[in-house]
Amino acid sequence: MGVGTKIIVATDSWHGSVEWCKAFEGSLPDTLFFPWDDSGEPVGADYAIVWRPAPTLFVRETRLRAVFNLGAGIDSLVGLPELPADLPIVRLEDAGMAEQMVEYVVYGLLRASREFSAYEAQQRAGEWSGLPPVNRSHWPVGVMGLGVIGERVARAVVRLGYPVAGWARRAREIPGAQVYVGAEQLPAFLARTRVLVNLLPLTPETDSILNRENLERLMPQAYLINVARGQHLVEQDLLDLLASGRFAGALLDVFRSEPLPQSHPFWKHPAITVTPHISAITLREDAVNQIVNKIGKLKQGLPISGRVSREHGY
Amino acid sequence: MGVGTKIIVATDSWHGSVEWCKAFEGSLPDTLFFPWDDSGEPVGADYAIVWRPAPTLFVRETRLRAVFNLGAGIDSLVGLPELPADLPIVRLEDAGMAEQMVEYVVYGLLRASREFSAYEAQQRAGEWSGLPPVNRSHWPVGVMGLGVIGERVARAVVRLGYPVAGWARRAREIPGAQVYVGAEQLPAFLARTRVLVNLLPLTPETDSILNRENLERLMPQAYLINVARGQHLVEQDLLDLLASGRFAGALLDVFRSEPLPQSHPFWKHPAITVTPHISAITLREDAVNQIVNKIGKLKQGLPISGRVSREHGY
Repeated sequence: MGVGTKIIVATDSWHGSVEWCKAFEGSLPDTLFFPWDDSGEPVGADYAIVWRPAPTLFVRETRLRAVFNLGAGIDSLVGLPELPADLPIVRLEDAGMAEQMVEYVVYGLLRASREFSAYEAQQRAGEWSGLPPVNRSHWPVGVMGLGVIGERVARAVVRLGYPVAGWARRAREIPGAQVYVGAEQLPAFLARTRVLVNLLPLTPETDSILNRENLERLMPQAYLINVARGQHLVEQDLLDLLASGRFAGALLDVFRSEPLPQSHPFWKHPAITVTPHISAITLREDAVNQIVNKIGKLKQGLPISGRVSREHGY
Repeated sequence: MGVGTKIIVATDSWHGSVEWCKAFEGSLPDTLFFPWDDSGEPVGADYAIVWRPAPTLFVRETRLRAVFNLGAGIDSLVGLPELPADLPIVRLEDAGMAEQMVEYVVYGLLRASREFSAYEAQQRAGEWSGLPPVNRSHWPVGVMGLGVIGERVARAVVRLGYPVAGWARRAREIPGAQVYVGAEQLPAFLARTRVLVNLLPLTPETDSILNRENLERLMPQAYLINVARGQHLVEQDLLDLLASGRFAGALLDVFRSEPLPQSHPFWKHPAITVTPHISAITLREDAVNQIVNKIGKLKQGLPISGRVSREHGY
């Protein structure tokens, strides 16, 4: 008979690990939570709950039965050579993130299609002058990546009355939206899209997918909303397309280098809105409930959702 | 046997009247459309289609059987002493306006609750720093006026996951929203509201309803979205509440005087966003279809919706 379950919590800071431990404390019977300490001793943990953990975690803790990632994107985790090949990874599936992502994307879409940035410029100039009314048919929205969050975003935009298409690796149905599948159908998906929303996982296949070749396939005066990973976008290609007038603008929440370096041209670009990776923040309470629920199921030998496919990288 | 139906089209400009005539032409069999001309002769019109018409219209055209207003708000029309007391008025009920109003209100709500204006200020300063995640429960939305458009707005905000209440003259049901009724319940409605959306008709009872006394009842750090009429708001009271820190901001599409005068303090106020009465523009095609459909019904003696109650003023 053991001493119960041990769980190590490892985020990108000592402070963060302690805060998450506190949030989990008392949530599972007969379970102890340990914050990760770079210079600490092995605790013999059964599970790890992580967000950008120190790679040594997987060297020191050798009894792990599963890793829970405190986010939807697991690209930084699966890239670690220290991660045992057979260790199951479980990602957060929503934890309040889909709702936030819907808000962020809808805001960006409305700002573009309803020309709120033009009206702001008019206000600064003290100018009163209506622009032609928006016709939704001129603003087809395309959502790349149709996971839990992408599907929620697509459905929300369908409800607003915009033409919507999605692009995914595998065929699926989203009422009111046309779904394009695989590399073959990517050009057709892009050609009918004006507002491109990127919600793809970052994998070797999707790295730099938002490059000149693909972005040039979009409708004229296109608008990019990137809420996935900075590595999806070839940043100079976007700048070139904006400079040539091919692109209208972009709302960007993620960047190749974060924080976005002070000297980066995005900061001062009049057609680019920069936000500091806040489109969807893991809500602690939702995350705790989801992970606790899944650990409970694992301990009873029940199946859980959100298992990462190491082959596909998400 | 007459010469068919005659319809006079009178907007606030000759050019506008001619454009609308063109839009209606050919839409009804055996019907002639005449643009209003200030110095013209009576045409003996059966119906008038109007938007801020010259009051003399109702003196010159004495055979009118109904007036169709090219907008949802009929306050400027019913205020005309020349308007015969028994002439039926029909207002536009949607004509693409509800969808636009949903977009405008949702944009304002997200901009406030997701702190996009703070992030824009950070971008101007080259500052990378996340703010605490939004908790929708801190942003209860209250919709004043639950007509066709108000109800659509309330439902859209319910779907986004915000707490929603509505306020109306008469009791009604909106799934997911609490409805407060009448003057008695106005204080309670305001006390639970942080983002106040005004979609009321302008009547003697609602004139200046957005005054200090009522605005002070809102939750701290309140935000006002006014998309109804400028006369609903006591503008100096809003400025005072912003100055005292009681209010967080406002998105205003309508004003006591339009265009907003150059010297008006709203133009330069950092917490006020001004748009030039564009929240919902009558879409010509939708308006034509709706009015043509109703005239067809009237000629067959069938009932139509959108009849204005002169007693209630909407």
